[in-house]
Amino acid sequence: MEHEKICLAHGSGGKLSQELVEQVILPAFGNPLLNELHDGASVNMAGTNVAFTTDSYVVKPLFFAGGNIGKLAVCGTVNDLAMTGAVPRYLSVGLILEEGFLMDDLRKIVESMRLAAKEANVLIVTGDTKVVNKGAADGIFINTAGIGDIISGSHISPKCVKPGCDVIVSGYIGDHATTIMAGRHELVLPATLQSDCAPLNGLVQKMLKAVPQIAALRDPTRGGVAATLNEIAEQSKTGILLQENAIPVRSEVQGVCEILGFDPLYLANEGKMLVFVDAKYTKTLLDVMHQHPYGKDACVIGKVTNESIGQVGLQTNIGGIRIVDMPLGVQIPRIC
Amino acid sequence: MEHEKICLAHGSGGKLSQELVEQVILPAFGNPLLNELHDGASVNMAGTNVAFTTDSYVVKPLFFAGGNIGKLAVCGTVNDLAMTGAVPRYLSVGLILEEGFLMDDLRKIVESMRLAAKEANVLIVTGDTKVVNKGAADGIFINTAGIGDIISGSHISPKCVKPGCDVIVSGYIGDHATTIMAGRHELVLPATLQSDCAPLNGLVQKMLKAVPQIAALRDPTRGGVAATLNEIAEQSKTGILLQENAIPVRSEVQGVCEILGFDPLYLANEGKMLVFVDAKYTKTLLDVMHQHPYGKDACVIGKVTNESIGQVGLQTNIGGIRIVDMPLGVQIPRIC
Repeated sequence: MEHEKICLAHGSGGKLSQELVEQVILPAFGNPLLNELHDGASVNMAGTNVAFTTDSYVVKPLFFAGGNIGKLAVCGTVNDLAMTGAVPRYLSVGLILEEGFLMDDLRKIVESMRLAAKEANVLIVTGDTKVVNKGAADGIFINTAGIGDIISGSHISPKCVKPGCDVIVSGYIGDHATTIMAGRHELVLPATLQSDCAPLNGLVQKMLKAVPQIAALRDPTRGGVAATLNEIAEQSKTGILLQENAIPVRSEVQGVCEILGFDPLYLANEGKMLVFVDAKYTKTLLDVMHQHPYGKDACVIGKVTNESIGQVGLQTNIGGIRIVDMPLGVQIPRIC
Repeated sequence: MEHEKICLAHGSGGKLSQELVEQVILPAFGNPLLNELHDGASVNMAGTNVAFTTDSYVVKPLFFAGGNIGKLAVCGTVNDLAMTGAVPRYLSVGLILEEGFLMDDLRKIVESMRLAAKEANVLIVTGDTKVVNKGAADGIFINTAGIGDIISGSHISPKCVKPGCDVIVSGYIGDHATTIMAGRHELVLPATLQSDCAPLNGLVQKMLKAVPQIAALRDPTRGGVAATLNEIAEQSKTGILLQENAIPVRSEVQGVCEILGFDPLYLANEGKMLVFVDAKYTKTLLDVMHQHPYGKDACVIGKVTNESIGQVGLQTNIGGIRIVDMPLGVQIPRIC
C-alpha cells in the first residue's frame, strides 16, 4: 500500500477501504470465515449455525432528523445480520464516551437504542463503557455486535447471484446521507426528508418466508448502491445493468445532489436493501415487500447479466450506458 | 444521578461506573440476561448455550512493555468469555482509527492480535473499520466482541460463591497498571516488569476439567482485585476476608505504589484471575494451576465468610482488619 498514514477514505467503504482490508487486515486474520467478507460471518456453535457481526458508529452529528447514533447502532447491526439471512437475536453494546459528554444526551441515545431494539425484537445482553479524556473522542462512539439464528432453508450469498436475477431496491435512496449532510451544514430541508434508519429484519423474514430462493441481500450503507453493487458484481463474477429512470430518488435528495455535485447512487442508506432474486420470483417478492412499511416503495432497478463481468453499468435516461465505478474514497465522511 | 456530565470515573470500573449502569443503562436495556452483570451473557441459540461478551479498548499509551492495545483487545475478550466458564471460539473486531494514524503502527497492532488469537485458539471472523477526522479520536480504539461454547457440567456464577470458599489469585497483581503508568510517565522500570496481558482460557479449561465445582471466576481488570471482590461479595451476599501477607505483589510494583501512593489491590490486571472454590478442592486446583505458565504463582489470598456481608476486609500484617472499599473513581484512567 502506498499510504503510510490512515486517511478518511480508508473508512469510506470504497476502494481504499478494500485495500486496507486486503493488504493489512486479511494477511493477519485471514481465514475461510472472514474471507467471505459478507456483512456478517456464519459460524458453527456445537452444531448450531450462528450469524455474528459487528459495526462501530461514529456518525456526526450525533442527532439528526429521523434518528441518532444510538438508533443507527442498533439498526445497523440488526440489518447486517438480516442481510446474511439470519434472525437477529442478541446485541452487545460498547460505549466510548468523551469526558464532559452530557448525561441527558446519553439518556436520549440509550432510549433510542431501547426503542430500536424493541422494534427489531432483539435483546441487548452484554455491554461495556469506557471514558476517554476531553478531546480524545468526539462525544460518543458506539460499537454494537450481534448474533442471530441462521434461517434454515435459505442460502443467502453473493455467490448465489446469477445472470437472470433482478436487482430490487426496497425504497428511495440517499435519504440518510442527505439528512446527515444537511444536519452538518445546518441546511434547512423539507420536514418530509429524514434519515431512513430502520431495522429491516421484520421485512426480510417475511420476504424469505415467501421466497426462500432469494439469492442475496445487502444494505447499501457506506459507499451507497454503487459500492454495494460493485462488490456483488465482483464477488459473483457477473455484470449488473441499472435503469436510471427506475431508481427511486426523492426530488429533495435529487435537488441537494444537483446543487452539491453528489450522485445519489453513492449516498449511504440506513434502512434500505438491495435484493437479488431470479426474475421468476420478482412479482411474488414485490407483492410481499409492498405490504410492509419499509418495502412499500420497492421496485426493480436493474438486471444481473453475463456481460461486462465485475462491472456495474447504468442505462441513462438519454439512452447511453455509463459505468458506475467503485468509489475511490468518500463523498461524505462519518455518515454512520 | 447528580452528575450532569460524564467524567473519567464513569469508566473506572468503580462506584461511578456502577451508578451509570444502574441509573442509565439498566433502566433502558434491562432484561434478565443483562441484569446478571457478569463478564459476558449466556444466551440460548436454537438449543445451544452460547456465551457472548464485548469490550472496547482505549488504553494509553498504545504500546507498552509486554503488549499493545491489539494484544489487550484479544486477550481481554477471550478472558471475559473464559471467566463465564466458556470456551472462546470466535471474535469480531471493530477498529476506530484517527486520520493520520501510522499504517506501520496499525500493522504491528494487527500482528499482535493475530498472535494473541492464535495462542488463544480463537478465530477473528468479522470486523469493521471506521476512520474519524484528525483530533476526533486518540490514534486507535478497538472493540472486540466474542462468542464461546459454554462448557457443560460447570456452573460458574457469583451466586455460587458461598462461605467456606477459598479465594485464589492466579499470580502477582498490579503488573499491568504499573507498566502502563510507567509508560505514560516515561519512567524506567526494571526489564522484569511488564504487563501481564495474556489469554487465560487454556488455563481455565484445565482447571474446570480437574475441578468442575469451581464456583466463580473473575479477571480483576479495571478497579483491580478490590473492585472485583466487592462485586462478588455484594452479588453473593457473603463477606470476604483477605490476608495481606498472602497477596503476591512484586517488589517493583510495591515500590512504585509506595512512591505514588497507590494500593496494589486497586490496580488493573490483564492476565490474572480470581478463583472461588470450596476449600476442599483448593489443593487439587492449585496443583493444576501451578503446572501452567499463567498459574504458576497461584495462591490462596483469603476466604469467603458469612460475616460482614457485602464487605471485603483485609487482615493486615500488623494484626488489624481494614475494610477494602469499592473504589469510587479511578486511580489510573485508560488502563485498558
